[in-house]
Amino acid sequence: MRGLMQDWPLLIPKVIDYAAAEHGGRAVVSRSVEGPMHRTTYREVRERALRVAKRLDRDGIRVGDRVATLAWNTWRHLETWYGIAGIGAVYHTVNPRLFEDQIVYIMNHAEDRVLFLDLTFVPLVEKLAGRLPTVERYIVLTDAAHMPRTTLPNAVPYEDWLAEADADFRWADVDENAAAGLCYTSGTTGEPKGVLYSHRSNVLHATMTVMPDCFGLSARDTVMPVVPLFHANSWSLAFAAPMAGAGLVMPGPKLDGASVYDILTSERVTFTAAVPTIWFALLQHMEKEGGALPDLTRVAIGGSACPPAVIEAFEKKYDVPVLHAWGMTEMSPVGSICGIKPEVQTEDYEKLLGVKATQGYTPFGVEWKITDDDGVALPHDGRTFGRLKVRGAAVARRYFKREDEEILDEEGYFDTGDVATIDADGYMRITDRSKDVIKSGGEWISSIELENLAVGHPDVAEAAVIGIAHPKWDERPLLIVVPKAGREPGRDELLEFLRPRIAKWWMPDDVVLVPDIPHTATGKILKTALRERFKDYRLPTAV
Amino acid sequence: MRGLMQDWPLLIPKVIDYAAAEHGGRAVVSRSVEGPMHRTTYREVRERALRVAKRLDRDGIRVGDRVATLAWNTWRHLETWYGIAGIGAVYHTVNPRLFEDQIVYIMNHAEDRVLFLDLTFVPLVEKLAGRLPTVERYIVLTDAAHMPRTTLPNAVPYEDWLAEADADFRWADVDENAAAGLCYTSGTTGEPKGVLYSHRSNVLHATMTVMPDCFGLSARDTVMPVVPLFHANSWSLAFAAPMAGAGLVMPGPKLDGASVYDILTSERVTFTAAVPTIWFALLQHMEKEGGALPDLTRVAIGGSACPPAVIEAFEKKYDVPVLHAWGMTEMSPVGSICGIKPEVQTEDYEKLLGVKATQGYTPFGVEWKITDDDGVALPHDGRTFGRLKVRGAAVARRYFKREDEEILDEEGYFDTGDVATIDADGYMRITDRSKDVIKSGGEWISSIELENLAVGHPDVAEAAVIGIAHPKWDERPLLIVVPKAGREPGRDELLEFLRPRIAKWWMPDDVVLVPDIPHTATGKILKTALRERFKDYRLPTAV
Repeated sequence: MRGLMQDWPLLIPKVIDYAAAEHGGRAVVSRSVEGPMHRTTYREVRERALRVAKRLDRDGIRVGDRVATLAWNTWRHLETWYGIAGIGAVYHTVNPRLFEDQIVYIMNHAEDRVLFLDLTFVPLVEKLAGRLPTVERYIVLTDAAHMPRTTLPNAVPYEDWLAEADADFRWADVDENAAAGLCYTSGTTGEPKGVLYSHRSNVLHATMTVMPDCFGLSARDTVMPVVPLFHANSWSLAFAAPMAGAGLVMPGPKLDGASVYDILTSERVTFTAAVPTIWFALLQHMEKEGGALPDLTRVAIGGSACPPAVIEAFEKKYDVPVLHAWGMTEMSPVGSICGIKPEVQTEDYEKLLGVKATQGYTPFGVEWKITDDDGVALPHDGRTFGRLKVRGAAVARRYFKREDEEILDEEGYFDTGDVATIDADGYMRITDRSKDVIKSGGEWISSIELENLAVGHPDVAEAAVIGIAHPKWDERPLLIVVPKAGREPGRDELLEFLRPRIAKWWMPDDVVLVPDIPHTATGKILKTALRERFKDYRLPTAV
Repeated sequence: MRGLMQDWPLLIPKVIDYAAAEHGGRAVVSRSVEGPMHRTTYREVRERALRVAKRLDRDGIRVGDRVATLAWNTWRHLETWYGIAGIGAVYHTVNPRLFEDQIVYIMNHAEDRVLFLDLTFVPLVEKLAGRLPTVERYIVLTDAAHMPRTTLPNAVPYEDWLAEADADFRWADVDENAAAGLCYTSGTTGEPKGVLYSHRSNVLHATMTVMPDCFGLSARDTVMPVVPLFHANSWSLAFAAPMAGAGLVMPGPKLDGASVYDILTSERVTFTAAVPTIWFALLQHMEKEGGALPDLTRVAIGGSACPPAVIEAFEKKYDVPVLHAWGMTEMSPVGSICGIKPEVQTEDYEKLLGVKATQGYTPFGVEWKITDDDGVALPHDGRTFGRLKVRGAAVARRYFKREDEEILDEEGYFDTGDVATIDADGYMRITDRSKDVIKSGGEWISSIELENLAVGHPDVAEAAVIGIAHPKWDERPLLIVVPKAGREPGRDELLEFLRPRIAKWWMPDDVVLVPDIPHTATGKILKTALRERFKDYRLPTAV
């Protein structure tokens, strides 16, 4: 027997319809790529998104077609998302930080028919256009006055293109499970893989992030996603902010410490979110130039683990609580956030900081477990670490055009590739990537924990730990260190530094100093390259 | 093209699964019907709900069957909800305040197979059991020690019945659109009508009420639904609190001012919700006995319009912000809530109180419009009033066993039967029920506004306004007044009191004093009876 409630599908246009109806005058402020600040409202964003939709329709874009964007966070980028999803097409956010070959690969794989691009990226795309046969039209997100001469075929300034349509349009009537967004994971091995979001997954994910213990967004908030729309779905903020009726501040292309400080304070941002790198730069800027963050009521930090020192600086120095979050493109992306449950609330800041340095717990809509290599669930004791697997309303089931490849276990969980502990209060701590964990005598050693400890040594600029083949233990850890300029820490000195901090069997079997460590396009340590480089390394203990 | 995200249906058991997994030790505290306070946790509630499910299954209850409850808010009632929904059956909450014939009618209409009932209601149900042929079993929500002798056929104490099953059970795998809950509207005319909630509508509605600008529930909250589970789905709190990981306090049968004060303060409740009557009683108690509400951070008031004096008392005297809400059984039930948008934020409390006295604006998931009798949309100017119509993810589409009866307009909106204005900032004010509005010369006069003004006169205990047939104007207002004990306000005195407060054409054409006014089972003025009583009344102006 079915319930007798209305059929009200969870469609992305409902979000901007709601914002325009209930919070129509709320400000959407952007630092434009051309330079000046730009101010609009949800009412206008919706109207222009309707025009984007109508104009795309006239260009022959149909339900399910992919339309790419290569753009910073601005009101125009936001309009294109709602316009594209609003005709039932699929917004495909291209990350400009990918290697050129990767951009070409994903755009051809997605068969993007149109590319919306910022002025910034015109030179890049001119180089690639010859290798992008599916793209019929390049729409530069600017007006005629700022339009550069370009070799891009069929290029047009966005404002001229948009002026050719009015807002008299009805959003497409698609199923809530229809594809709406596409985002590729960069990955350190193999080709990038596309995660294909649905209207439903995006709307449900936004409802979950709006909740008080997640981002906790209100109509009285002013939200600045520093995290780009092209980075893991902008952590849902392009949907969550209008759903909550919160004002939006879009920082455009300027993401250095001084610019972020400037816009945070001048626009009186109350909530913001980005990866740790952004916050290092902001804190360094404020350290040097001074300043305060009186309007900011909390900051979300994720994308990679946030060092406790950054949390402490925000909280103690600037009185801004930190929400440490974890997720991935395959999770839309929020998987957990470090809210404070009553059971861990304490007056002891050092203890609280210990909690806040974890990746937190799941909001409603995400389920997780940790397992061993055989899929057996492991205890939540804060010590045992295992493969972190997730299930939920906004978690990937398959990758785009790889639909025959099973990526879920028998219970429907997706293996995140992370290795983690979960403690008795439910707080999760990422200890490693599963491919980087060092398997020594059947036990696991976390490369990341060793690296984090090693960078605590005053002479160490960066550290990586990889497993090296060992005849008795299978693998043993090798510590690879980039010294700070002019320093040359000794092997024994580094090991003695680690000794009191770790279990004896975690001690690296050797240390090597190197001038630099290779990184991925998104700034992570490229361990595959390190493993290749040290594949013939012989540990002194391997006798 | 479908998105490639996981199929994670929005099922009610997911809510208690989540609470048990992430907030398993959080307290669920009840004032038991037997008397003493009772303490349990979400982990135990889930475990016992699984046993309810398994035990119902053994009793032959199947997917879609209706299982009734006639009970106060306690942990046992909560367990039955999750257990019933968890096997795909339908919890049917029976309101003990209905007239006996109505209870018999709805239970037969629903074809309830089992009734869970509190000790309180055993005498009532013993009277009715002979007229309830579909009920196979009566389960009294108590233990063997407190079980009364009873004539109820096949009666058993809940704890004994439950002890016959363990928790080794899997929740039923039903479609998210399957029926999960049934609640009848009492209505002043015709038979009660059943609203049939689905798993999806309840889960979506809960996500919407958890959000910061709605109830704003957090794991650090302690939530007390004074509003009964049998009243309009308990305003979603039986789902929203565990979804947020908030602690729950269930006040059981004692809802007088002293008892509510006692449990609010001793259990350090941070959020509570009820109809105005409850809060009158609490405020009167505190007026007399003194006291403070240091832990309460906000109170939700709905069910009928909340007088500004109650809002002011909470806010100014006890420093507890009020959330004025509106909804109805057909809306699961929340339709709007009076959060403060930045555009109405002000330091001027009188002005703010004017906003807070409105029924607020819609959360994401509800859409509304006001129309004239022909369905034409009216402006949102704060003056024009029209029929309030709603659409959304948790709004009724049809009534149970009346599926051939269309209740939505061409755009899919449900007519709430309320008449309201919506202002330019989106704030809605109920001005009347559409059947009570007085239609004078083609214009509408709000009976409720006249009543609210009239009760402001120092000699008036209660007031009702109805339309009386008029040869020229079609209808004109008659003011019916119950004077305070020992007072006898004059007709002219009352009219002079109103004159400066309303438009001239709103002035009642006559006043009558009466000793009392009839009410519905749920305490509303029974205007049908008043219209019947005054159907031959001749206005002095009707010449």
